[in-house]
Amino acid sequence: MESAMNGGDGVYSYAKNSAYQRGVIDVAKNVINETIAENLDIGAFNSSKTIRIADLGCSVGPNTFTAVENIIEAVKSEYQSQIPEFHVFFNDHVSNDFNLLFTTIPQDKQYLAAGIPGSFYGRIFPEASLHFVHSSASLHWLSRVPKEVKDKNSPAWNKGQIIYAYSGDEVIRAYKAQHEKDMDNFLQARALEVAYGGLMVLTFPFNPNGSHPSERLVNLSFGLIGTCLMDLVKKGVVSEEKVDSFNLPLYFMSPQEIEAAVERNGCFSIVKMEILPPVRGHNNGNESLDHQLAGMMRAGTEGLIKQHFGEDILDELFDLYRKKMTETFIPSMAKSVEQGHLFVALKRKS
Amino acid sequence: MESAMNGGDGVYSYAKNSAYQRGVIDVAKNVINETIAENLDIGAFNSSKTIRIADLGCSVGPNTFTAVENIIEAVKSEYQSQIPEFHVFFNDHVSNDFNLLFTTIPQDKQYLAAGIPGSFYGRIFPEASLHFVHSSASLHWLSRVPKEVKDKNSPAWNKGQIIYAYSGDEVIRAYKAQHEKDMDNFLQARALEVAYGGLMVLTFPFNPNGSHPSERLVNLSFGLIGTCLMDLVKKGVVSEEKVDSFNLPLYFMSPQEIEAAVERNGCFSIVKMEILPPVRGHNNGNESLDHQLAGMMRAGTEGLIKQHFGEDILDELFDLYRKKMTETFIPSMAKSVEQGHLFVALKRKS
Repeated sequence: MESAMNGGDGVYSYAKNSAYQRGVIDVAKNVINETIAENLDIGAFNSSKTIRIADLGCSVGPNTFTAVENIIEAVKSEYQSQIPEFHVFFNDHVSNDFNLLFTTIPQDKQYLAAGIPGSFYGRIFPEASLHFVHSSASLHWLSRVPKEVKDKNSPAWNKGQIIYAYSGDEVIRAYKAQHEKDMDNFLQARALEVAYGGLMVLTFPFNPNGSHPSERLVNLSFGLIGTCLMDLVKKGVVSEEKVDSFNLPLYFMSPQEIEAAVERNGCFSIVKMEILPPVRGHNNGNESLDHQLAGMMRAGTEGLIKQHFGEDILDELFDLYRKKMTETFIPSMAKSVEQGHLFVALKRKS
Repeated sequence: MESAMNGGDGVYSYAKNSAYQRGVIDVAKNVINETIAENLDIGAFNSSKTIRIADLGCSVGPNTFTAVENIIEAVKSEYQSQIPEFHVFFNDHVSNDFNLLFTTIPQDKQYLAAGIPGSFYGRIFPEASLHFVHSSASLHWLSRVPKEVKDKNSPAWNKGQIIYAYSGDEVIRAYKAQHEKDMDNFLQARALEVAYGGLMVLTFPFNPNGSHPSERLVNLSFGLIGTCLMDLVKKGVVSEEKVDSFNLPLYFMSPQEIEAAVERNGCFSIVKMEILPPVRGHNNGNESLDHQLAGMMRAGTEGLIKQHFGEDILDELFDLYRKKMTETFIPSMAKSVEQGHLFVALKRKS
């Protein structure tokens, strides 16, 4: 079950429902510039006439193109004389809409472009080939749902819920174990692929150290889909069993958890970690907030929901979701002081 | 106007109508193996732990996967001990169906895969990055139709024809000039991209030295589309003007012409050139020959025809084409001694 964002350029496409993710890229721009200025060691790359940049979990444009252009500008400013060639690798699941991605690459791009299909939890690049890795709003998607939470006979069965935030400790532990395995695979693969001295910048929605996931609004936004699915059970539209066996492969790690993963791996040092300012005022033109939030959620989860429940429930589900957002989420959002994504910059040790 | 093959996996898809092109790959296998055994200088690549292979004009699978696997096996057998990693770059026009290509990459592949969108007549790879370039049945597609042949006021106006083979010298000269420009761009781009000692193997339908293109069956197979379009003019289905302004961007070069292009460029030496055995007995299961030939032609030219004439004429046109193939082409084919594709192997001079 792959968690690729919606393809195409229709009403519920990721391309048209990613203003928030664009906001994350904008608020991360300065800190990425700083990271590059303080840590990029172009001397280490001198033997390479090409600088290779990967965007992991790129989905479709235009956000990935903006992110990549920002990085290239920052890297270029580190070079005094001869600017190298840039080879940019756009990575996402095999089921990502690469056709749309490729046809929308800007004409005036200052790099050579490649698409890399496959999960970033495995090896997707040759050894020591990458100089800069970027991943924005992707690393909270696990490689899979931990199987215990779908198992009726397991103490970690996640009955009536589709995320772990509002479940018992057994469920949370199962998700945490999956996350640790995924992060270990992620860092192990990147340790092989990133050249010595190479940088990796990651931004993702997170859980603060020591806080319970149920306190985070980001969990509420996903959890409400579960509430809506249970409403559809009551209406007889879907079976309760079907909902009990559905979970989203999502985990929001804490700063401590990424520090621990980096330490377990041993090949990277954390050169910067900070909480980004919250994203505000990013929207799709004149659309009202409830439609925007529902559209964003649909672009990101429709694929998984469709695979499990079929296509027919989608309109009803997300209409219900939009209403619930208006009742529950939007008022909480207004009062919230919840901060933005976590930004972490890692450098490949030599 | 891009000449990408039909995407998807429908009745007229390239994926289902490329048994002939598969045949070309099969007959080229031995000569590619020989070329690698005789000319691959792995010592020159010692500084690279990764061998980078590009398939230019890959379209969709499975032919491109077969070609690449053959090459990797041949390259691997040159290594005594430590086998390098292989990074394979699948290249085709931006409008190629990369989504289908990526979802059909074999699970057990022994390489890392990338998609490279863009015309191979321009720069698409970093400098000195490629060790082996393969291109099968692609290089006869020009980057564009020479504009004189669409110009009513030019002596090279190609009235009533859609290829140059049956036209006057002015038209042939215009196509030849376009081909020379394209080959110069192709070789200039590859000279920058292929590492010293790197190999490039090209197979393409060709015109023998000194023979007139009208003598070649491959021209008849494309020319008959023009005949069918003129029949649709008589039936009032399309306007004569529309046919007069339509041309296929195709050129079949001769051994002398590729030799001349390689000499003009100066960065490659021809290490092997031979005519491949003709492709025989390749077909799509039990389909009759006329349906096969019409399906293959439709998969390769439908995109261009649709752009110019619209979708509505396609079924009628290719039904007519199938009938004409039965009357004219298939009988000639049976008697023909026409040989297969030309195979040319080039080595990047250091």
